[in-house]
Amino acid sequence: MFRKILREELEPLATGAWILGTGGGGSPYLSYLNLRNLYADGKQVTLMDPMALADDDLVAVVSNMGAPLVGQERLSDPDFAAKPVRMMEAYLGLRFRAVMSVEIGGGNAFQPLMVAAVTGLPVVDADAMGRAFPEAQMTSFAIADLPMFPLTLADIRDNEVIVARAASWKWMERISRKACTEVGSIAATCKAPRTGREVKAHGILYTTSQAIALGTRVRDARRRHEDPVAAAIGAARGKLLFRGKVADVSRRTTEGFLRGTARLEGLDEDRGARWELAFQNEYAVGWRDGTVVVTTPDLICVMDSVSGEAVGTESLRYGQRVSVVALPAPDILRTPKGLEHVGPRAFGYDFDYRTVFAEVGS
Amino acid sequence: MFRKILREELEPLATGAWILGTGGGGSPYLSYLNLRNLYADGKQVTLMDPMALADDDLVAVVSNMGAPLVGQERLSDPDFAAKPVRMMEAYLGLRFRAVMSVEIGGGNAFQPLMVAAVTGLPVVDADAMGRAFPEAQMTSFAIADLPMFPLTLADIRDNEVIVARAASWKWMERISRKACTEVGSIAATCKAPRTGREVKAHGILYTTSQAIALGTRVRDARRRHEDPVAAAIGAARGKLLFRGKVADVSRRTTEGFLRGTARLEGLDEDRGARWELAFQNEYAVGWRDGTVVVTTPDLICVMDSVSGEAVGTESLRYGQRVSVVALPAPDILRTPKGLEHVGPRAFGYDFDYRTVFAEVGS
Repeated sequence: MFRKILREELEPLATGAWILGTGGGGSPYLSYLNLRNLYADGKQVTLMDPMALADDDLVAVVSNMGAPLVGQERLSDPDFAAKPVRMMEAYLGLRFRAVMSVEIGGGNAFQPLMVAAVTGLPVVDADAMGRAFPEAQMTSFAIADLPMFPLTLADIRDNEVIVARAASWKWMERISRKACTEVGSIAATCKAPRTGREVKAHGILYTTSQAIALGTRVRDARRRHEDPVAAAIGAARGKLLFRGKVADVSRRTTEGFLRGTARLEGLDEDRGARWELAFQNEYAVGWRDGTVVVTTPDLICVMDSVSGEAVGTESLRYGQRVSVVALPAPDILRTPKGLEHVGPRAFGYDFDYRTVFAEVGS
Repeated sequence: MFRKILREELEPLATGAWILGTGGGGSPYLSYLNLRNLYADGKQVTLMDPMALADDDLVAVVSNMGAPLVGQERLSDPDFAAKPVRMMEAYLGLRFRAVMSVEIGGGNAFQPLMVAAVTGLPVVDADAMGRAFPEAQMTSFAIADLPMFPLTLADIRDNEVIVARAASWKWMERISRKACTEVGSIAATCKAPRTGREVKAHGILYTTSQAIALGTRVRDARRRHEDPVAAAIGAARGKLLFRGKVADVSRRTTEGFLRGTARLEGLDEDRGARWELAFQNEYAVGWRDGTVVVTTPDLICVMDSVSGEAVGTESLRYGQRVSVVALPAPDILRTPKGLEHVGPRAFGYDFDYRTVFAEVGS
């Protein structure tokens, strides 16, 4: 029920989480370096099976919130990651039993590990997205209508905000996003605390282990000079959608998000075809020759065709050889209630969910 | 040291506070109506001499924050005004001894009276501006470098924000302003609690009484068919700067403020002359024929030339016959440290304080 995360698992976790980030969640690289340093200093993080949580245990749900492009410039720091957790404990007058990430995708896979390294809390092997998403109401906890407050938020100066109550998940998103944007579009947050019962019933379980396993498969393939993109597809039951070259990228950091589009020109079997991507932190929609092929919540992953390394929406650039891969989303996200929160209409698109996988329940 | 505020004093308080609002602080009319109702229901508010505060008493500093134009549309409500005070007590685990306004100018003169009516706390006869100002760091408490946090903020839905720490007064302003803007540009707030010692040393004292006295003089003159503008000038040792007619108004509600300019054409002795006003919630600068004559922190008051009623920046309109009057600012605002917070440069103007009164200390 409890095991130590090995130093050798940190790099696979970074690789796997970056793929599951579907372009967002922020690059795990800087957080990974932090963890490597912490391990070098003798720290070691414990991974906890969610089923080991007592029903009334309290779990801190943490994230580094904001625009990935800014996260590239403002370095992550374990004490900063832990600050909102300590704020929350002080505010509630309660102690946490464990810490977990709101999203396994991207750098936020490491956020609870950083908190764990400085607080000694174990990390729950679960998250609330099974990937990364840009907004607060895009979680399995929101889909389950769990309470959305309080939330604590800290920046690197000395600003600390508590959203004590919110009228809805969307209001929580709006208010916390504005606070985040105002302090520079990156803030460390501790979301509404969850009970052990809530995590077990409504979390996306064992995603830390899945990310480590996915990263391990990709890195093993790379070392053996096999195709790492194929290895990722095999490990996560995914599908290859397109191979091509980045021909154009349009990107802007706005309202606390990184929004934009990218155009790919086909290579190999896809020569002559065109692929377009739209993103809000994460890749949200993929078009082939003008036709929608895949949408959120399916994981739309862009990977370097040679190394299998994920390509984030902030690091896409002209000339990159990339593969577009779809991985299946957790079932809860694909239910009608789930699609209200994370389907294409929740991102402002005027069309329904398209998937390259079988529909849920079919 | 304690006295009841009479029902008959509410209307003079509204008139006086609206003049001291220098165009901002929000029209007191709706809050005045609330108080009249509360008095009709048997409530009565106690006014407390600040010198009656013990050094370690805790005082709630309240305000209705936001853009005056929005305050015209979203009605004020005593329970809503009291909500952030109750949030602050819960957050600190302490009880307040009394309540005071951050600004005597405009509707915020009534904010502590509404809180007092529903909580039973007395209202301290003092504020932190001696007028109205648009931003959080524009107070005598900020000029005295007192701590700026925590702040509690509530909206009319069910959103509640606590700014637990801020790196500076300007950061407090930025973060709380964004929260206020996001919930609709009007929020009830309780600013950083002040001790009795702090209020006595750094508050602007007896301004509630001054506002009542000013309003009484204006209303008496109006009743006696005397010149109410002259009465206000006499009551507050002010100066008449211009009489004219509103010829043009440009106004926009932006970033949680009401910003704009107005142009007046001279009448009577000022016929042929032109007067311009710039405002950010409150009137900040006055130009006569293109030359700066008066700037913040002097109180630039625009009054209806016939009734002596103040004209707010949100209610200025073409054709109004108005008088522009300057009233002297509290000395603390006119010191070099004070001018850093509330002088024209603090509002983004590239010139120094101009006054129609003697300089402080001269």
